[in-house]
Amino acid sequence: MVYCFPHGAIVLKNMDAQYYIDGVEAGNRLVLARTITLIESSLPAHKQLAREIVDSLLDRTGKAVRLGITGVPGAGKSTFIEVFGTMLTEAGLKVAVLAIDPSSSRSGGSILGDKTRMERLAVNERAFIRPSPSGGTLGGVAGKTRETMLVCEAAGFDVIIIETVGVGQSETTVASMVDFFLVLMIAGGGDELQGIKKGVLEVADAIVINKADGDNVDRAELARREYEAALNLLMPYSPNWTVPVMTCSALANHGIEAIWQKIEEHRRQMQDSGEFEGKRKKQALQWFRFILDEGLRSWFYTSERVQQEMPQLLGEIEAGTASPTAAASRLLDLLDHRPL
Amino acid sequence: MVYCFPHGAIVLKNMDAQYYIDGVEAGNRLVLARTITLIESSLPAHKQLAREIVDSLLDRTGKAVRLGITGVPGAGKSTFIEVFGTMLTEAGLKVAVLAIDPSSSRSGGSILGDKTRMERLAVNERAFIRPSPSGGTLGGVAGKTRETMLVCEAAGFDVIIIETVGVGQSETTVASMVDFFLVLMIAGGGDELQGIKKGVLEVADAIVINKADGDNVDRAELARREYEAALNLLMPYSPNWTVPVMTCSALANHGIEAIWQKIEEHRRQMQDSGEFEGKRKKQALQWFRFILDEGLRSWFYTSERVQQEMPQLLGEIEAGTASPTAAASRLLDLLDHRPL
Repeated sequence: MVYCFPHGAIVLKNMDAQYYIDGVEAGNRLVLARTITLIESSLPAHKQLAREIVDSLLDRTGKAVRLGITGVPGAGKSTFIEVFGTMLTEAGLKVAVLAIDPSSSRSGGSILGDKTRMERLAVNERAFIRPSPSGGTLGGVAGKTRETMLVCEAAGFDVIIIETVGVGQSETTVASMVDFFLVLMIAGGGDELQGIKKGVLEVADAIVINKADGDNVDRAELARREYEAALNLLMPYSPNWTVPVMTCSALANHGIEAIWQKIEEHRRQMQDSGEFEGKRKKQALQWFRFILDEGLRSWFYTSERVQQEMPQLLGEIEAGTASPTAAASRLLDLLDHRPL
Repeated sequence: MVYCFPHGAIVLKNMDAQYYIDGVEAGNRLVLARTITLIESSLPAHKQLAREIVDSLLDRTGKAVRLGITGVPGAGKSTFIEVFGTMLTEAGLKVAVLAIDPSSSRSGGSILGDKTRMERLAVNERAFIRPSPSGGTLGGVAGKTRETMLVCEAAGFDVIIIETVGVGQSETTVASMVDFFLVLMIAGGGDELQGIKKGVLEVADAIVINKADGDNVDRAELARREYEAALNLLMPYSPNWTVPVMTCSALANHGIEAIWQKIEEHRRQMQDSGEFEGKRKKQALQWFRFILDEGLRSWFYTSERVQQEMPQLLGEIEAGTASPTAAASRLLDLLDHRPL
């Protein structure tokens, strides 16, 4: 594995787009890592260059299986990705693992963390692990992850795994950039099952109960059936797919292959029904709107004028002396006098 | 009931805020209706006046029970609100029913519609029914509904029922302005239960299976138990409230009182734990952000410049010749040169 510094740690001297484009197309992992560093950089010159590179690589993207994975704490996400990813590389596939963790303010430590978490995958020649850039908003981090996914595809990776730690809206965001979203669960003790985080059920393409091993097999099977019943009450998102609830044990390497088969089956079904292409197109447009909205909000809320007035408005709302609508109007009036 | 014209149909000659403030405070229903018409108006002068009125009435608001009701099509929402509302008025309470329906382009017809839908409530002296303003975005319609709720409170209504037809994000929006959100369901035929719309489960404070009458009693009870099991798999939003799943028959007037008791129990629990005040405060701040975001987006997306460039950018994204991020940057660059 290439050792990847977080953004900013590498001094990027080369400002020639073609160097990066050629390197990525040739599958040069060092150049790939540097390209991602450019994408993650907040310097305007880097951003401009990154945009040029990504746009040039666009026609080489889109072939990979884009897989999102989330899991409740303790579900064994790292072990699962380690075993799952290793299985794929043994089948001859090249696998990139990207992480989205907007809550994290971890810096260099994250790399060590990710290397430790997935020891075997980290030294695997066919695998590429990239932690999420530290800090930033979800939109910012996710935006960079999406571009990173594209350059990994252009570099020839067959499967891109986007991992999210499940903070706030991150599942929905990841779901909006992948083909298949897998939710990892574990069986709880007795009646109280591990609660599914709000909003996750609706974006899952499969639910997998991990740690179905040893004494835990029966409880995992019980949990599987209960989640299956719960899912039956929700409207299916497609007439061509019933969200499966499966069990596996990453530790015992059991049931992992069946999950990959489900992902391939899903891909076939979606491609045959034409939903695959439609979803990809819809995701690109959604993404465009998302980036626009985020950029627009950032421009507005970080402006000097809004930051100046915000504390007083919030205070008045909390005290109940101004209605939310009236308070908002006072800021929106600023825009009315400033047509774009 | 006061006959309420949709916004714009009344010519509002009186532009003196005090006239409206005094009238609402005195519980004058004609002035209340006119105030709501002001709130719904899109004329800048009306908007300014409405803002002044609502702000002046603020310290008279907050006492009512704010109740959101949604239901799947065919769940018998109108009959339920009719029977439920009548029960409340018979207990001496004053009830206002407001609707949110951003998808509707209905004009005068909606009034007849709403009057026909709730015949008894429409002629009830203690009830006030107001259809949603026609057209507009969800944010616009919902914003007006929230202000309308506040003036109804100031006019002395004890229970405000906000009804939503369940289009798009409207449940989440309604849930963000009420104390209690009730989801009305019916039992499906056999195995296939009526699917719960995505996102609704997570904002429900109670689920009620309606039409538990005649041959349908057993199926309703079965549905009740299945939904209860499904809800057990979700994380509770508060340690002080377990979302109940109940059955009722609005037609046979059975189980309606128990629902009101649950709503009162919820209010007591939330007040005792301090969550009530916290939720109201949080909702006001959420609302402020929502209105701001909506206004900001509207300013941006309806600007001449953005509308001019948008079609080409969308075309390039669909054709795959521009990445969503690059396309978005081209519009966001407009903002960079225009600090607020």
